[in-house]
Amino acid sequence: MVRKNKGVLKIYESLQEKTISTSYLYRGKIINVRQDRIKDARGKTAFREVVEHPGAVAILAVNENNEAILVRQHRQPAGGVLLEIPAGKLEPNEDPLECARRELVEETGLQAGKWRELTYFYTSPGFCDEKVYLYLAEDLKKGSSKTSDPDENIRVEAIPLSQARDMIADGRLDDGKTIIALQYALLQETC
Amino acid sequence: MVRKNKGVLKIYESLQEKTISTSYLYRGKIINVRQDRIKDARGKTAFREVVEHPGAVAILAVNENNEAILVRQHRQPAGGVLLEIPAGKLEPNEDPLECARRELVEETGLQAGKWRELTYFYTSPGFCDEKVYLYLAEDLKKGSSKTSDPDENIRVEAIPLSQARDMIADGRLDDGKTIIALQYALLQETC
Repeated sequence: MVRKNKGVLKIYESLQEKTISTSYLYRGKIINVRQDRIKDARGKTAFREVVEHPGAVAILAVNENNEAILVRQHRQPAGGVLLEIPAGKLEPNEDPLECARRELVEETGLQAGKWRELTYFYTSPGFCDEKVYLYLAEDLKKGSSKTSDPDENIRVEAIPLSQARDMIADGRLDDGKTIIALQYALLQETC
Repeated sequence: MVRKNKGVLKIYESLQEKTISTSYLYRGKIINVRQDRIKDARGKTAFREVVEHPGAVAILAVNENNEAILVRQHRQPAGGVLLEIPAGKLEPNEDPLECARRELVEETGLQAGKWRELTYFYTSPGFCDEKVYLYLAEDLKKGSSKTSDPDENIRVEAIPLSQARDMIADGRLDDGKTIIALQYALLQETC
């Protein structure tokens, strides 16, 4: 085991890159762009363009009929309307679970009696630091109607988990976090 | 059916947003940032910050031992070394399948006898237009050794598909596209 750990450490050392300097190229509303000068283990230097994002949560909310609660909304970057699990950006210093509770009620009007963190993932680590915390929310009930955010022009839909696989295959579901969450549910359920 | 289609169209219309104007805030090496002024179906206007990315391919390469071929490399945005399926950005006007062939051989030295497009997805459609085309590559064989890109400081590893589920659950696999691909393989295999 020690030998193996040493081997793994050596691999990590040989791949590691050190940041020499950082400069900001753009500061925006949601994201910033910085340029890092790095040095790799062979002494070679290079520049890396990094998009900084505050991080986000996403919620696999499943009701008693084995349906996932999804939201349909326009996504300007995709140039159209997408069907996704509820999700949202972390506020500064916000606890991810608190953020998940907030986003679920804002986007769907639902509150969940049972919460569990399933996993986290980077959405596109080649150029962006966005990290998404994925939660399972069960035991759903309607929250106070006032908590739903009137500024969010979204439509809530319940999709049977049994339809998710076809909807991923034919492109009706084409959002990364949504595919991860629904495939997770399918693997739990049927395997 | 006609009635249902009309209903779906009405929903899309009510969610649709129209772009009024666009201005570029940053032009970088990999990404650009633009700001769109939009008008929603209720006539409300707002600004949307959009990160433009050229799009990418990702490759689920599976060998005859039912192992996925992954690459370990430093990812500056994640601040460390990640284990991912082979992937890469599209060159201007590049066909995604050609890009997948190129990236597989550049990153792993492997060529595949069988290719199939599995699906596509947006990595983070709330702020970024990056679209990833996911391919399955089988019937793997070593290509000419010269084709592997010496500039890429990456390490190739074969991971049994049977270990993928645990590795997603405990965070050893924490890249979105990699999780999507391996969950897909697990669902094909075991369900």
